[in-house]
Amino acid sequence: MLDAIETKKIKENTAAGVQVCDVTIGGTETVVIAGPCSVENRDQIMSTAASVKESGARILRGGAYKPRTSPRSFQGLGEKGLKLLKDAGKSNALPIVSEVMSEDDVELVADYVDMIQIGARNMQNFALLKKIGQTRKPVLLKRGPAATIKEWLSAADYIRDGGNDQIVLCERGIRGFDPYLRYTIDLGAVAWIKANTDFPVIVDPSHATGIRELVSPVAKAGIAVGADGVIVEVHPKPADALSDAEQQLNFEEFNGMIAEIESPLPSIA
Amino acid sequence: MLDAIETKKIKENTAAGVQVCDVTIGGTETVVIAGPCSVENRDQIMSTAASVKESGARILRGGAYKPRTSPRSFQGLGEKGLKLLKDAGKSNALPIVSEVMSEDDVELVADYVDMIQIGARNMQNFALLKKIGQTRKPVLLKRGPAATIKEWLSAADYIRDGGNDQIVLCERGIRGFDPYLRYTIDLGAVAWIKANTDFPVIVDPSHATGIRELVSPVAKAGIAVGADGVIVEVHPKPADALSDAEQQLNFEEFNGMIAEIESPLPSIA
Amino acid sequence: MLDAIETKKIKENTAAGVQVCDVTIGGTETVVIAGPCSVENRDQIMSTAASVKESGARILRGGAYKPRTSPRSFQGLGEKGLKLLKDAGKSNALPIVSEVMSEDDVELVADYVDMIQIGARNMQNFALLKKIGQTRKPVLLKRGPAATIKEWLSAADYIRDGGNDQIVLCERGIRGFDPYLRYTIDLGAVAWIKANTDFPVIVDPSHATGIRELVSPVAKAGIAVGADGVIVEVHPKPADALSDAEQQLNFEEFNGMIAEIESPLPSIA
Amino acid sequence: MLDAIETKKIKENTAAGVQVCDVTIGGTETVVIAGPCSVENRDQIMSTAASVKESGARILRGGAYKPRTSPRSFQGLGEKGLKLLKDAGKSNALPIVSEVMSEDDVELVADYVDMIQIGARNMQNFALLKKIGQTRKPVLLKRGPAATIKEWLSAADYIRDGGNDQIVLCERGIRGFDPYLRYTIDLGAVAWIKANTDFPVIVDPSHATGIRELVSPVAKAGIAVGADGVIVEVHPKPADALSDAEQQLNFEEFNGMIAEIESPLPSIA
Repeated sequence: MLDAIETKKIKENTAAGVQVCDVTIGGTETVVIAGPCSVENRDQIMSTAASVKESGARILRGGAYKPRTSPRSFQGLGEKGLKLLKDAGKSNALPIVSEVMSEDDVELVADYVDMIQIGARNMQNFALLKKIGQTRKPVLLKRGPAATIKEWLSAADYIRDGGNDQIVLCERGIRGFDPYLRYTIDLGAVAWIKANTDFPVIVDPSHATGIRELVSPVAKAGIAVGADGVIVEVHPKPADALSDAEQQLNFEEFNGMIAEIESPLPSIA
Repeated sequence: MLDAIETKKIKENTAAGVQVCDVTIGGTETVVIAGPCSVENRDQIMSTAASVKESGARILRGGAYKPRTSPRSFQGLGEKGLKLLKDAGKSNALPIVSEVMSEDDVELVADYVDMIQIGARNMQNFALLKKIGQTRKPVLLKRGPAATIKEWLSAADYIRDGGNDQIVLCERGIRGFDPYLRYTIDLGAVAWIKANTDFPVIVDPSHATGIRELVSPVAKAGIAVGADGVIVEVHPKPADALSDAEQQLNFEEFNGMIAEIESPLPSIA
Repeated sequence: MLDAIETKKIKENTAAGVQVCDVTIGGTETVVIAGPCSVENRDQIMSTAASVKESGARILRGGAYKPRTSPRSFQGLGEKGLKLLKDAGKSNALPIVSEVMSEDDVELVADYVDMIQIGARNMQNFALLKKIGQTRKPVLLKRGPAATIKEWLSAADYIRDGGNDQIVLCERGIRGFDPYLRYTIDLGAVAWIKANTDFPVIVDPSHATGIRELVSPVAKAGIAVGADGVIVEVHPKPADALSDAEQQLNFEEFNGMIAEIESPLPSIA
Repeated sequence: MLDAIETKKIKENTAAGVQVCDVTIGGTETVVIAGPCSVENRDQIMSTAASVKESGARILRGGAYKPRTSPRSFQGLGEKGLKLLKDAGKSNALPIVSEVMSEDDVELVADYVDMIQIGARNMQNFALLKKIGQTRKPVLLKRGPAATIKEWLSAADYIRDGGNDQIVLCERGIRGFDPYLRYTIDLGAVAWIKANTDFPVIVDPSHATGIRELVSPVAKAGIAVGADGVIVEVHPKPADALSDAEQQLNFEEFNGMIAEIESPLPSIA
């Protein structure tokens, strides 16, 4: 079954963790990445950064270039968004991660962020992967919604072949048939990755479920299955968000999520 | 989104837990159900029952009528298997659960077992559901591999309409596209069920993954997401098992699984 | 790839066609099966039978026992429906096909119909398959919405092992992710079956699409890919139908479908 | 159901056909596009062009930049491949189509080809779509393997918003669960597109099935369901091909495919 994946080689080649400034993803502790879907304005990102930092987040996320299904949806603030994100990270001593969608923006984005995100829709945008492989920034590689594990690991190979092996995988839900949830979070794949490779893996319960009240239990399940962290969308006032209003947590809900994750599992009868 | 499911009604109609002899599924504690895929002989089921009891299992499982993809695969011991299972349960003070596949066997199986299992392939075998609705035994209703949440809850309605509301749902993996894992465990659906209904839910990491080493992390994830228990396949010597050799745990591995579930989650960095 | 299917054996064991009274499915001509989703009353089934016969249908379909997702939906007229269907078939010299859902009804249904249908939800109801294997009626075996080709052919084995090899397969759509269509018709699987086995296969464009205007083009595509026939839902007044109102054709639309199927394909530029 | 798609607008905005040099896709005739998966050398592409032209193809395809799952697989000849393809097209009076994978290559590729292809993996590479929207070349937009119809049409919007409305959609199979076929060809979606929009649509039976012997029946089914053409992989000696050896047709097989498509459907019994 593993014929096409040289598991051993993966284990050897990959470092025991990926370092994002002072934060290790893939070490012994769980890393929480949080922030708004999109950077919208200074107040929004500053207040979010301060709040998630206090609750326990170690890395700040925020979209500046947004991959929206329709061209008529809000597309992000672009470089202005990166500047705001950088300021917010600096003010709160949080490394920042943001998505790059265009080959032409790789250098620019790499200049601002501490970790580059490749979105699910671009997991097999090989030209983009190659360009990012030439940077020396840590990479957050989201799984495409129809990607097999083999395709996901092969996408990572495109980055590693450029000389960049600082890769963290992110499971954010695969395409499923049930209209009740936005995607199907594939925690079995996370367990497989942890058992067969040395890649750090995190899970994204916000995009996977698309439902606010499910973010917390799915985040906890991700950690229980072996993920090295979670990435969660947080917004001062989710109902007013310019994107993903349904699934972003407000500050109090995010704080509650951390508490729920830290509470012990029910004992066995 | 919930238009078709009268959530409120589900919450009111369903008891706060399902009682299987002295074990409550859906209470405050996690219930572990364990035992072999198929009952094969007296020694096998007796030794398994004693071992899983000692490790912490509260209910004994074992297949007597086996739903095999091919008619040329081992089909189970039938009533002889039920007798052996009952003896093993009695000797170890464990309630027993086993699957019924045929309408004609409902009464017979109900006479032996403490909980009737409906397998994934029969989730929409409405004639069988109706017959089981007329018994007063607790029911373990597995989700079909292509069933939406709505179809799953509607299957439960077929049982409840007969007057039997002692139903525990079981997520055992849905059909996915990745050949590396047998099925895709849908823990988002478990979170949804817990958030929107009062049904107790358990997860089946053995069938969902089909890979021995993934059983333990997926079981733990199931509990973390809110499941009320797990059902796990255990066999004295999995390599010799007449069915599901790839995924059954031996006694030591099962004991290790309990330990892993009980170990605390890594702390947040 | 074919390791698990003994293709050769399938080719040898299966007859070159299945005979339903005077109609051969799997011969050189395309067989059209038509009729209402549910038999509702005498007028409905009589007028439908006469009309579809005149348009070119060779077998009459009609549900008497209906597998509905919810127990609170119309469940069919039962034996009364079978009687009406039989009368309508006799009056119009059309063999009849109807679904059986319960093991207990196999003999009764077999007494009335010329061909027994196994619905998609019961494709792996092995107890039912075994009972039907003991009859000597031709069988229409629908594919389960999450069944692999191998599982589908193995379901047929359950029937053949009882001594009944008069089996016609029916592709009726598999579970897909797009909310726009009810199911995803898998015509690649039909091509595979025709290339690798001797089973006659038909397609069901009504259930596969769930959209009236798509029935005709999908039916034609099924024939083009090699299917031996189609099964189509027809109702005097679809808007008033007790089930499947969205996809049943009225008499005129059904007649138009036959014309569309018989019109030549556009020429190659 | 159509809430999110402004169908009317699509119908008005889209031309009645897309012109690729002297070939109209979306007119009254079926257009066959053929050629090798990858351009490999002068002899290969020249002989293929001459042969497919004679058999009835109207447009020549050939990959110069290849989107391979692994970076260690053959990646195509790049610009050298485009030159060879252009020569072969010119010599045989065939317009040419080839894929562009990188934003940086859009101008270069547009200089060589008569139609630009966007591959399935890049269907939501929005940066690439925007760049292509600024060219005035006809576009072949393949559907992503997990894309809903809505997402597919929205991807086309990214191109149209740049001012380029010369778009042909291509269904090439969606991700399915059955290991027997490479993808699941979704002909129901093709029927939906034809019924609800004015986009020309073609089907790709080669990538969809991944099995040589299924290419011909699936191509015919595509035309029967309403597609305006087919795109098929043809190679002088498929067993020696540097990519997609399993599914390319040799010259004789391609000629046989045309004959099969042109043969009338079996008559209705």
